[in-house]
Amino acid sequence: MSNSYIDLSEKSELSKDFNIDDGWRFGMIRTARFADLDALAHLNHTTYLRYFEDCRLQYLIKHGLTTIQKCSPKHPSPFLLGLEIKYLKPVNHCDKLLITTRCIKIGNTSMTLEYSAWTNGCAAWCVGAFVFVIPDTGDKWTIDKNLKDSILKYELKTVSI
Amino acid sequence: MSNSYIDLSEKSELSKDFNIDDGWRFGMIRTARFADLDALAHLNHTTYLRYFEDCRLQYLIKHGLTTIQKCSPKHPSPFLLGLEIKYLKPVNHCDKLLITTRCIKIGNTSMTLEYSAWTNGCAAWCVGAFVFVIPDTGDKWTIDKNLKDSILKYELKTVSI
Amino acid sequence: MSNSYIDLSEKSELSKDFNIDDGWRFGMIRTARFADLDALAHLNHTTYLRYFEDCRLQYLIKHGLTTIQKCSPKHPSPFLLGLEIKYLKPVNHCDKLLITTRCIKIGNTSMTLEYSAWTNGCAAWCVGAFVFVIPDTGDKWTIDKNLKDSILKYELKTVSI
Amino acid sequence: MSNSYIDLSEKSELSKDFNIDDGWRFGMIRTARFADLDALAHLNHTTYLRYFEDCRLQYLIKHGLTTIQKCSPKHPSPFLLGLEIKYLKPVNHCDKLLITTRCIKIGNTSMTLEYSAWTNGCAAWCVGAFVFVIPDTGDKWTIDKNLKDSILKYELKTVSI
Repeated sequence: MSNSYIDLSEKSELSKDFNIDDGWRFGMIRTARFADLDALAHLNHTTYLRYFEDCRLQYLIKHGLTTIQKCSPKHPSPFLLGLEIKYLKPVNHCDKLLITTRCIKIGNTSMTLEYSAWTNGCAAWCVGAFVFVIPDTGDKWTIDKNLKDSILKYELKTVSI
Repeated sequence: MSNSYIDLSEKSELSKDFNIDDGWRFGMIRTARFADLDALAHLNHTTYLRYFEDCRLQYLIKHGLTTIQKCSPKHPSPFLLGLEIKYLKPVNHCDKLLITTRCIKIGNTSMTLEYSAWTNGCAAWCVGAFVFVIPDTGDKWTIDKNLKDSILKYELKTVSI
Repeated sequence: MSNSYIDLSEKSELSKDFNIDDGWRFGMIRTARFADLDALAHLNHTTYLRYFEDCRLQYLIKHGLTTIQKCSPKHPSPFLLGLEIKYLKPVNHCDKLLITTRCIKIGNTSMTLEYSAWTNGCAAWCVGAFVFVIPDTGDKWTIDKNLKDSILKYELKTVSI
Repeated sequence: MSNSYIDLSEKSELSKDFNIDDGWRFGMIRTARFADLDALAHLNHTTYLRYFEDCRLQYLIKHGLTTIQKCSPKHPSPFLLGLEIKYLKPVNHCDKLLITTRCIKIGNTSMTLEYSAWTNGCAAWCVGAFVFVIPDTGDKWTIDKNLKDSILKYELKTVSI
C-alpha cells in the first residue's frame, strides 16, 4: 500500500492549493475531524501537535528509522526537549490541511525539526528539538551515518549543520 | 478539493486489499497514528469510535445534511442514543484501516448506522442509533424527504424501513 | 498520596449529591474538561469510555493486579471484547461526574464490568467483557484466586458467578 | 460542590509533596490516565497542554470570566497566539501531577500565562500569550477592570505590568 507522506517536489499543484511557502518537501494531508474540534468549533490547539508528531515519526521512518513503526522500547525513539508554536488562524470542521516538516539541524544525538500546518496559507507553525533515547535503558542514541546522510540528501538547501 | 470519502462500488480493488465483506459502499481510509495508540502500542479502543463518528458525519453531509459541517447549534445534529461495539483484533502503529458505514434503519427522527473498521478482515464492528436534535432548542428534527430518499437510493439493498 | 478511587460505602453523601442508584461501591470523580467537549459544547461520546477505561484499570489495580500500573507487555492486561453503551443526557463544560464500576461476572480468563457516569442521575451507562492476555506472547491469562477472592469479597451482592 | 482548583498558599504541604518552586499559587491535581499515555507508556507530550488549557480556563473563571464555563461564542474567549514548552522528565501511568499557572503579563486585550506540571520537581514548563476574542464577531475584547484587579490582587508578587 502507498506511503502516507507526499514529496511536494513532485506535487507542485498541492503547494499552490494550500498556498504554502517555498522550502518544504515532506508533507501529509489531514482533515479537521469533529472530535478534534473544541467547544468553539475550531481545531483544538493540541491537535496541530498531534499532526506534527505524526509527521515527525513518518519523516524519521522515511529516512531509515523503520523501527519506530514498532514502538519498541528497545529501539531509538525521539524524546522531545521542547517546542515553540505559533497559532496564526483558526481551522474549522472538514477543512483540509497540508502538514509539512523539515530538518533544520542535526547533531550527534539530537535533531531539530520545523513544522507548519497550511490551509490557505499558514495556520500554525512549530519548531522543536528532540534527542534520541533507547527507552529501555535511558541511554542516548548516536544518530547513525545513514540517517544523517539520507536527511542531508533529502533536504539539501534547508539543513544547517 | 476531492471529498474524503470513497464509493467502494467504484473501487473494488480497495475492498480486496482490506478483505472486507460484501454490502458496504461508503468508506474512508485512516492510518493508525502514534498518539491514538495506548501504552501497549495498540490502537486505543476509543479511537475506533472517533473514526466511526467521522464516518457518520461525512455520510450525513454526503446525503444532504451539509449544515453539519458548520457545527452550528441551530441546525439538526445527530445525538447518539447508544452504541454496541465488538473488538476483533488489535491494530498497530501505521496500520492502514478502511472505515465503512451503512444505514440499516431510518425512522421519522432517528436513524441506525452500522460501522466496521477493516485491516485485513474486520478489526472492529459497531452499530448504534441516533436521533436528530436542534441543539439550541432541544427539539427533535423530523428527517426530511430528501435525506431519506438520498440514503434509500444509495443503500438500496441494505436499508430496512 | 491518597488513592484516586472512592469507596462509596463510606461516602453516602456523595451518592446523594450525584443521585446515583444503589449497588455501586467503586467510584471516581471527574470534571468535564474543555478539550473533552466536542463542537456542540457537550462531552464527546468517546470521553465516557476513557473515564470507564480509567475506572476499569484502577478497579483491577485495587484488587491486586498492580502490574497494570507499569503498562508492561509481560504482565496480564485486559483486552476488551466489546462494549454496549447508552447515552442518557448531555454533560456540559465543568460539570462534575461520579464514575462508578462493578463486576457482574468472572470466568476463568474473562470478566464483565458494568459502568455508569452520574451527574444528577445517570448520564451514561456501559457494560463490557474483557479477557486477560499477556501482550508479549498473546496467551490468555487465567484469573488467579487472589483477584477473584478480592473482587467477590468487595462486591458481595452484585457479583454473579 | 467544591471548586476544582487549589490555593497553594493554603496548602503548603502539597507544595512540598510535589517539590515545587516558590511563586505559584493556583494549582490543580491530575493523574496520568492510561489513555493519555503514548505507545512508550509515557504521558504524551500533548497531554500537558490539555492540563494547561484546563488550568488556564479555571484560572480565568476564578477571576470572574464565568461565561467561559458556557463555551458560548457570544462571550470573550482566550485565543492562543503561541506557546513555548519544555519537557524535563517523563511521567508514567498513575503518576500524580500538580499543575500550576500564574499570570506574568496583562495588556489591554492580551494576557500571558506561565504553567508548570510537577511530579517530584518540574516535569514540564510552558509559557504563552493569548488574546481575548468574541468568537461570533471576531472582535477583540478589552480586558475589564474587574478581571485585571482580581488577578493583580491574587498574584501580587508575580505580575509585571
